[in-house]
Amino acid sequence: MPSKVSGPVKIKGQALLPVSVNWLVSVAINFGLLLKLIHDGHLRMVWSSSLNGMPDKENEAPLSSLSSSFTAQAKQGNEGLIQQQLINVDHGDPTMYQSYWKQMGDRTTVVISGWQSVSYFSDTKTHCWFLEPGFANAVTKLHNLVRNAETGNRHIVVGTGSTQLFQAVLYALCPSDAPEPMSIVSAAPFYSSYPLITECLKSGLYKWRGDANEFDRDEPYIELVTYPNNPDGSIREAVVNGNGGILVHDLAYYWPQYTPISSPADHDIMLFTLSKCTGHAGMRLGWALVKDEAIAKKMVKFIEISSIGVSKDSQVRAAKILDVIADTYEHAETSNKSTRFFDYGYQEMAKRWRQLREAVNKGQTFSLPNLPVGKCNFSNRTFGTQPAFAWLKCEKTIDDCETFLRKHKILTRGGVHFGSSKKFVRISLIGHEEEYNEFIRRLSLINSVESL
Amino acid sequence: MPSKVSGPVKIKGQALLPVSVNWLVSVAINFGLLLKLIHDGHLRMVWSSSLNGMPDKENEAPLSSLSSSFTAQAKQGNEGLIQQQLINVDHGDPTMYQSYWKQMGDRTTVVISGWQSVSYFSDTKTHCWFLEPGFANAVTKLHNLVRNAETGNRHIVVGTGSTQLFQAVLYALCPSDAPEPMSIVSAAPFYSSYPLITECLKSGLYKWRGDANEFDRDEPYIELVTYPNNPDGSIREAVVNGNGGILVHDLAYYWPQYTPISSPADHDIMLFTLSKCTGHAGMRLGWALVKDEAIAKKMVKFIEISSIGVSKDSQVRAAKILDVIADTYEHAETSNKSTRFFDYGYQEMAKRWRQLREAVNKGQTFSLPNLPVGKCNFSNRTFGTQPAFAWLKCEKTIDDCETFLRKHKILTRGGVHFGSSKKFVRISLIGHEEEYNEFIRRLSLINSVESL
Repeated sequence: MPSKVSGPVKIKGQALLPVSVNWLVSVAINFGLLLKLIHDGHLRMVWSSSLNGMPDKENEAPLSSLSSSFTAQAKQGNEGLIQQQLINVDHGDPTMYQSYWKQMGDRTTVVISGWQSVSYFSDTKTHCWFLEPGFANAVTKLHNLVRNAETGNRHIVVGTGSTQLFQAVLYALCPSDAPEPMSIVSAAPFYSSYPLITECLKSGLYKWRGDANEFDRDEPYIELVTYPNNPDGSIREAVVNGNGGILVHDLAYYWPQYTPISSPADHDIMLFTLSKCTGHAGMRLGWALVKDEAIAKKMVKFIEISSIGVSKDSQVRAAKILDVIADTYEHAETSNKSTRFFDYGYQEMAKRWRQLREAVNKGQTFSLPNLPVGKCNFSNRTFGTQPAFAWLKCEKTIDDCETFLRKHKILTRGGVHFGSSKKFVRISLIGHEEEYNEFIRRLSLINSVESL
Repeated sequence: MPSKVSGPVKIKGQALLPVSVNWLVSVAINFGLLLKLIHDGHLRMVWSSSLNGMPDKENEAPLSSLSSSFTAQAKQGNEGLIQQQLINVDHGDPTMYQSYWKQMGDRTTVVISGWQSVSYFSDTKTHCWFLEPGFANAVTKLHNLVRNAETGNRHIVVGTGSTQLFQAVLYALCPSDAPEPMSIVSAAPFYSSYPLITECLKSGLYKWRGDANEFDRDEPYIELVTYPNNPDGSIREAVVNGNGGILVHDLAYYWPQYTPISSPADHDIMLFTLSKCTGHAGMRLGWALVKDEAIAKKMVKFIEISSIGVSKDSQVRAAKILDVIADTYEHAETSNKSTRFFDYGYQEMAKRWRQLREAVNKGQTFSLPNLPVGKCNFSNRTFGTQPAFAWLKCEKTIDDCETFLRKHKILTRGGVHFGSSKKFVRISLIGHEEEYNEFIRRLSLINSVESL
């Protein structure tokens, strides 16, 4: 049973009282942390003086404004008083990739002059007039290298992350004169931002209807298919079998570090994001590959109305980064495997999944879903999907996995946000290495002690 | 009366028929252009092979996807066949500023390494966790230099242009549980994007109610005050005198190149955009200064949901650019007046307004509003407001000024888009110099011939 202990945990000199097992674990973890802090001198850790500012469940969004950036906090030198220590594996901040890009040195450095990015326009020959031609070329080149998506006869639409593109898709697909808002569905567990974005402005164009498995209205709908799925990594197809359905494929994670690339995706509307491909979340850049010209044009119109285009600076940088990735494969003679981006990502994800499975297998407190194994046509490896997120289940009598882990100073996102049960939480595997290792250490310890 | 002649105008060798005055003007303009083309060799001009793709009035948005970028078209080398020549002064693409930034050479160049912009987070100590501290500091420093806005006890919220911030404000101010959507108003003529953005998703939170002068409902409302006003440059105060009103001040143009800075603006919610301040429209960056913490937090929440933050690359670049502007004033000994940004902008706007008034004064076809004169506390100059846009009126029997000018291959935005009459059009004064000069030449010619 979860302990009722809450508030600041005092460690030093405190007698251990005969409280619940969780309390023991908590103290053990905190003591371990203290030792680690003393050893590291300046351990980069979230000293959550803001734990009082826990995310408000009602308003909780994809990224809580709770102190969450491991690095940012570390820079602020809060090593003084340790009141609470929080490991944040709630959101998918892809800081794992930073060390790779540091290792690449100047190869992806860009120099931008003061007179660049003055005009709103990038290319007036294409429908997407704010799309930088260099970025469009780099996107096409990378897809053609990885063979994860068909690019022929497609329109590229760039967006402020795939988040904006998702909204652009809804705007483009939902008629403005329909008597009822269009139903938007996705099979649970679904990406927790879908309902938040869809419902945010109470639009009359569309309405979130939740789990696609339970949708049985005889009316037009849009089904979102995330492939592989966030949060659980499953490989999916559409589940609704109705008339007048339109499919939108979110392929944020269809890259060879996460999942075998079995064939080029060939759907009508496909969304990608730089955040999960190269790890550059701070650029806020995504792209859509769209078959139908009228839909692409309407998406462009939405982005025109809602932000008059997309940062050129980020597009210029992204073009350089994608080109360098492609170069390390196309000029294999000058690259060894460890300097090739997707190989690095694959190895890192494989390692983290091994660590996680080992920690989970130490006891009976947690479980993980089985994930499909397949041959990757890009890398020629056969491997099991190793997603950016793990869909962890608390076993036994632990009914609320998020609350349980939070008591152990591990911040996760609970299953309810994904249209699922409280028995589950989503765990990010793509954060800083030190933070991830500390998370694994705690999870192992909890699992070992809980399973005594 | 406007001529009925339309379609490609053939010039060479064509006998002049006794048609209307407009037809004469049209031929004269085209012949003049041909001569100029021959002279310049590669005149940068929009050869609108896409004139067939005229913006659809029903869907027309702030920026039409019509071939509109003077430079972009020029690069495409369409100097061959002249079928139509279009001067686009419809939208406010601030390419005027490019020559200044070129002149500044490397001073504003930034170098960004491949490992930057990986995390979503910029600063977890502030509410606006995606706000780069360097950008926040540069914004504060510039306001304190120019004294155009109070920054004390304000929260800075960064957005993907002030366009996204406007939506964030609406989201923050409109209760999600109100029985009726909140009314959004602005005194006509108002910025043409306000209704488009407000109505775009048919939100249940807010509703566009048009001209604030006509708003007489006894219910809460939001009044948008653009100062100085877009499109007509007037200096405004709120006009609705109701209960429960909230004011939002759009201060995009409250900079000393456009209008005398009489005192620091001191409103609850103030919006700014880089596009019209420094001319970097392609960065898509704006900021809000917000007094109330709860409102700022809700704005941050909207930007979190709708785009998970704002491009860090653009923030880094903008910080550099704003810092350099401030530097040229703070270290006056190393700068002469022509290298100081606002002096350059002021001189350029003054010149363009002189040209425009001269062209308008050549006949009785057009008129311009009188704009207020005042003392600028920043520059110590006393001058009349010289806005980024002119609000041009067609006189005499010309009822539809936009259509009239379009027949002369001048693309403007008609008054109807601003909640006003077809007698008016909005003209951008901040485009490329060559394009602006050509516009002035045509307008003078039309005015002279029409007034014969």
